Amino acid sequence: MSRFQNERIKSLTPYTPGEQPKERKYIKLNTNESPYPPSEKAVKAAGEAAEKLMLYSDPECRALTEKMAEILGLSYDEVLMTNGSDEILNFAFMAFCDKNTPAVFPDITYGFYPVFADLNGVPYEEIPLEEDFSIDIKKYFNAGKTVIIANPNAPTGIYLTLSEIEEIVKNNKDNVVVIDEAYVDFGNESAVSLVRKYDNLLVTGTFSKSRSMAGARLGFGCGNPELIRDLNTIKYSTNPYNVNMMTQASGLGVLNDEEYTKANLEKIVDTREYTKKELEKLGFTLTDSKANFIFAKHNALSGEEIYTKLREKGILVRHFTKERIKDYNRITVGSIDEMKALLSALSEIIK
Amino acid sequence: MSRFQNERIKSLTPYTPGEQPKERKYIKLNTNESPYPPSEKAVKAAGEAAEKLMLYSDPECRALTEKMAEILGLSYDEVLMTNGSDEILNFAFMAFCDKNTPAVFPDITYGFYPVFADLNGVPYEEIPLEEDFSIDIKKYFNAGKTVIIANPNAPTGIYLTLSEIEEIVKNNKDNVVVIDEAYVDFGNESAVSLVRKYDNLLVTGTFSKSRSMAGARLGFGCGNPELIRDLNTIKYSTNPYNVNMMTQASGLGVLNDEEYTKANLEKIVDTREYTKKELEKLGFTLTDSKANFIFAKHNALSGEEIYTKLREKGILVRHFTKERIKDYNRITVGSIDEMKALLSALSEIIK
Repeated sequence: MSRFQNERIKSLTPYTPGEQPKERKYIKLNTNESPYPPSEKAVKAAGEAAEKLMLYSDPECRALTEKMAEILGLSYDEVLMTNGSDEILNFAFMAFCDKNTPAVFPDITYGFYPVFADLNGVPYEEIPLEEDFSIDIKKYFNAGKTVIIANPNAPTGIYLTLSEIEEIVKNNKDNVVVIDEAYVDFGNESAVSLVRKYDNLLVTGTFSKSRSMAGARLGFGCGNPELIRDLNTIKYSTNPYNVNMMTQASGLGVLNDEEYTKANLEKIVDTREYTKKELEKLGFTLTDSKANFIFAKHNALSGEEIYTKLREKGILVRHFTKERIKDYNRITVGSIDEMKALLSALSEIIK
Repeated sequence: MSRFQNERIKSLTPYTPGEQPKERKYIKLNTNESPYPPSEKAVKAAGEAAEKLMLYSDPECRALTEKMAEILGLSYDEVLMTNGSDEILNFAFMAFCDKNTPAVFPDITYGFYPVFADLNGVPYEEIPLEEDFSIDIKKYFNAGKTVIIANPNAPTGIYLTLSEIEEIVKNNKDNVVVIDEAYVDFGNESAVSLVRKYDNLLVTGTFSKSRSMAGARLGFGCGNPELIRDLNTIKYSTNPYNVNMMTQASGLGVLNDEEYTKANLEKIVDTREYTKKELEKLGFTLTDSKANFIFAKHNALSGEEIYTKLREKGILVRHFTKERIKDYNRITVGSIDEMKALLSALSEIIK
């Protein structure tokens, strides 16, 4: 650290992204990427956009936002596109939390929430998940804080139903409730349908998982136009051209190819359910994940042992060191061939 | 505004980007874009990268950063790539300013500095430019604040020599000095050569102007490895995947095509000098701009009148309403044909 650091960064512990090793080729089941390539329409649109890079991108992301709004059943002024969903989540902390309005989220969830809180000087409460990693929604009622819930939750994959989400939103009328739906498309109901009913609901999403565009950095938030206006105030005070031209174009491309996205989603859900059954046969205990990953603990081997031995065999999964979940690994649902390679490697490790 | 806004955003006045009108086709001389297309190597690399969008981009921007460092004569750990140079500037405010370490910059300069200050709760002082819009460097000595200087300055285009910059850096040993070199490539000396001599110097740059990549959003900062480490702490606490895959690839592409960049720079400088002479013949007073724009005031017509009449004729320039500069317009140096169209339109307006 330099001698010029301010107090804020002295206390920061940055987020650690999943490893992206370069020394050898792995089957990467550690960062929840899609095993399927981006839509051809996305690729083509990106290439065409690249020819006009000398011009600034549209700071309003007009065409992309309008298409996104149409798909979500909302209007342009109810949607904001961002440089990945990390950006919209940070904007929400910047706009709706402060010393007097702390944040609250589960103890086991997306590891970036406490980082955003620290970055913005926001106190926060972590409510422990239940013994089975489920969320007891009543513990979030009338929180007096900005509520942040990943649904389905990560890394557990467990989801709350739409009516449970609605109960949380309804019982926090004077605070913003952020529902982070990074993994919603893999078989869950989205809370976007509640946006027009509750002015305190912000739903965030990403193109990284279900739309095969992790490398493009594209996320979004939807909510009441006044919430979106506040988030735009942050955007235009931070980085007005936050989403580059190629990402805007490829985002519009994939939204014009919903059949392709749906076909990939079906394949991933089928592969997930197949893999879950096979893992259970091998002695794994699983959460009921509705995301594009599986959260698995073996009845004999430790989480770290499984992680390390898989790595030696050229397969990367994500291992967490947090006490409550250290016996688990989070395994991305890849292609069926990748999952068969995983199962075969695990059979060898276990026997 | 929503009823959930925190104190921070209640007081924010966001930055206003230059207009990007869609209702008709203009000759756009208002946002300092390059008139020349991006390097073919950049376009090709972006298209290839788009095919792999399902994977996350490299959060370290390793290949791009190494090439950038090589061109700057620095090492990997002395350079940080960002989502436009607005991002690195904001990171600097986040890392090196706070209530106890205010910022200081000229009263007439890049309009985003006061916005970053307000966003981060940083008090700031604006030091008036001299009567001729020059900077009196002594007014920045021992400022006891984080110093931010755009060099050349915008919208005046006036530059400080390398030794003047060094005097400012040398006379602020206990504070960070940020030199924003968005426009440095159009005929000025860069302060990057001082980075290894002073641990309090941060130099920022952009690919938007000289490298024809405004739409890609790519900026960078260079400084002592400890400064860069602090800025990385902010990055990894904000948006670890801040630079998407296509932008990383196209950025590397243009860096592998320095001849193309240099040829464009020469054309822009020639066009600038030609246009300045012609504008003087038409009764304009100009600053000695060393950027890719001209800052011009007419001896008979008001700045607003010129702006409005040019707009009616399909030519956009940037007009500012700030009292001291309201008689001026900032005119981007476009292609020679665009400048001839400008001069012809101005001849008609003036007669």
